[in-house]
Amino acid sequence: MNVLFTFKVKAEQMENLTSRFPGVQFEYNNEIEEAQIDEFEVIVTYGGDISSAVLKKATSLKWLMVASAGVEKMPLSEIAERGIVISNVRGIHKTPMAESVIGHILSLARALPSLYEQQKRKEWNTRVRQTELRGSTAIILGPGAIGSEIGRLLQAFGVRTIGCNHSGRPAESMDETIQFDNLLERLPEADYVISILPSTAETKYLLDERYFMAMKPTATFMNFGRGDLVKESILIEALKNGEIGHAVLDVYEKEPLEAESELWNLSNVTISPHVSSHSGKYIERALEFFTENLEKWQNGNVELTNLVDPEKGY
Amino acid sequence: MNVLFTFKVKAEQMENLTSRFPGVQFEYNNEIEEAQIDEFEVIVTYGGDISSAVLKKATSLKWLMVASAGVEKMPLSEIAERGIVISNVRGIHKTPMAESVIGHILSLARALPSLYEQQKRKEWNTRVRQTELRGSTAIILGPGAIGSEIGRLLQAFGVRTIGCNHSGRPAESMDETIQFDNLLERLPEADYVISILPSTAETKYLLDERYFMAMKPTATFMNFGRGDLVKESILIEALKNGEIGHAVLDVYEKEPLEAESELWNLSNVTISPHVSSHSGKYIERALEFFTENLEKWQNGNVELTNLVDPEKGY
Repeated sequence: MNVLFTFKVKAEQMENLTSRFPGVQFEYNNEIEEAQIDEFEVIVTYGGDISSAVLKKATSLKWLMVASAGVEKMPLSEIAERGIVISNVRGIHKTPMAESVIGHILSLARALPSLYEQQKRKEWNTRVRQTELRGSTAIILGPGAIGSEIGRLLQAFGVRTIGCNHSGRPAESMDETIQFDNLLERLPEADYVISILPSTAETKYLLDERYFMAMKPTATFMNFGRGDLVKESILIEALKNGEIGHAVLDVYEKEPLEAESELWNLSNVTISPHVSSHSGKYIERALEFFTENLEKWQNGNVELTNLVDPEKGY
Repeated sequence: MNVLFTFKVKAEQMENLTSRFPGVQFEYNNEIEEAQIDEFEVIVTYGGDISSAVLKKATSLKWLMVASAGVEKMPLSEIAERGIVISNVRGIHKTPMAESVIGHILSLARALPSLYEQQKRKEWNTRVRQTELRGSTAIILGPGAIGSEIGRLLQAFGVRTIGCNHSGRPAESMDETIQFDNLLERLPEADYVISILPSTAETKYLLDERYFMAMKPTATFMNFGRGDLVKESILIEALKNGEIGHAVLDVYEKEPLEAESELWNLSNVTISPHVSSHSGKYIERALEFFTENLEKWQNGNVELTNLVDPEKGY
C-alpha cells in the first residue's frame, strides 16, 4: 500500500511510521502536483491541495486523511461519488485549548502576573492577593469536545461545572447541564463563565448587557469560542463598570484586534491573540489520529475514527 | 459545650458555626488572656498564645485545635500529662501549593508571560512558542501530601509522574516511585523536576552539579520545598549554561532573596517570593478541618483527623 503525505513531518516521525508499518510505502512531497498521484491509496493532507484536477489523477485513492478540522473547501461531491473515505482530526485542539484555559485561570488565581511584575522590579513582596480555584463554580458555554475537556480538568481541581447548550442535554464532565434559556438566571452562581461556542445564528450577540449585569462582580469571563458572542462595546462597559472582575479573551469581534480598541488598555483584561489552539505538538497529535486509523485500515476495517460524511461536510 | 476561637473569623463563618452546631457556645476573643479560660472545653488557636500559664487556667480544656501545621512552640509535655487532645491542619497547604505549581507549568507551556508582554505593547503576534503539557514526564521529589496532590493533577493532564523519596516505597498519584539513590540516572527522562522536599540532613544540598547536567536542556526545575536543596551558585551556573531550560523558584538559600542575587536577572527564571502556600481561603479551609472534627467530638469520637502526638510533636 502506498501513502502520500503532502505536508512536512520530522525525520524521526518518518522513521517511526516506517518501522511501525513495514508493509506500507510512505512518500513525502509537499507539492502534490509533483507526485505520481495515481499510485496512492491514501493521501494525508491539510486539505487545501485536493482539487478536482488532483482527484481525477488520483485513480487509486480510497482514503483521504485531512489533518485539519474543516473540509469545506474540498470537492466533496466528487469525493462522495467516488466513495472515497474521508477522516479528519476533529478534537485535535482540545488539549492545547483546555490547557490554555486552565493556565489562564490558575495564573490569575495565583497572581502570576503580579509576581512577574515584581520580579522585574527585583521586589520581594509577599502580600500578593491569591485565591484558590478549588470550591469555585464554572459555567461552560458549549460543552462539546473542547468544553468537556475543560470541564474534566476543572473537576479535577474541585470546581463545580455547569454546562450550557441549546438542548440542556447532559454533557460529559458537567455536574449539571442547562439550556441557553436558563443561563441568565444561573449566571450569579458562576466564578468563571467560559465560552467555546461557535458562531451561529443562535449564539451571535447572545450575551447582551443583562448577562454581564447578572454575573458576580468578581467573575472572570473567558471567550475562547468566537468573537461575535458579545459586542465589544458591551464587554468594555461591563469591565469598566466593574460588573465583572476580569476578562480573558482569545477571540474578538474583529481580528486582529484593532490598535485603537480600548480592550488593550484595561487592567482587568488579558489579551490572547487567538492562539489558544496552537501547539508545537500539532503534527504529533495529527499522526496519532492517523496511525490509529491506519491500523484499522490495514485490517480491512473502514470504520475509521473521525469519519467525515462528504455529503454533509462534517 | 463552650468553644473559644483566638483568631478572627468572618461574621458569615460565625453564623454558619452557630447554625450548624446549635448545642455549642462559641466565643471569639483574639486576646486569650481576656477570656474566661476555665470555661472552655475546646480552644481553636494558631498556637502561639498557648503558654504554660494559659494551660494552667484552662481547667476544662480537653481539645486544642491548632490552625497551623507546626506545634513545636507549645508546652507539649504539660499537654501530654493532662491528656489534652491536639489536632492540627496538616495538609492545608496542599491545595494552594499544587494550584501554584500547575499554574506556573501551564503559564510557561502556553507562553502566558509572552502574551502579557505583547499586550503591554498592543502587539498582535500569533507566533508565540507554545507547547502542551500532555505527554510529558515529571519527577516529584517528596511525594507526600503536597507532592501527591501535584501528582494527581499532573496525571489528569496526561503527565507521567515519577515520585522520588528515601525508601522508593510507592506513593499516591505516582506512576512509579524511585529512591534518591536512583534519581541521577532517571533525570534525563524528566520534562519537569519538582521539589517539595523539607530540609533534612539527607536533602540538604542534595542536587549538586551532576544533577543539573543530567537533566534535559529543555527541563523546568521547580523548587517549592526548601531553598537549601541546591546551592544558589550551582543553580545559576546550570541556568546560564543552558543545562536546563527554566527554573521556577518559590524558596531560596537565603530569604528574602537578596537584591544582588543574579537570579533576579536571568530570563529563564521565575521568582516567586515564598507565597505558593498562601491563599485567601486559609481560614475557610481551617474551619473545614475543625467542623469535621467537631462533629466527631460531639458524638464522643475522640479519633479526630490530623491528631498530633504531643510527645512526638507531630
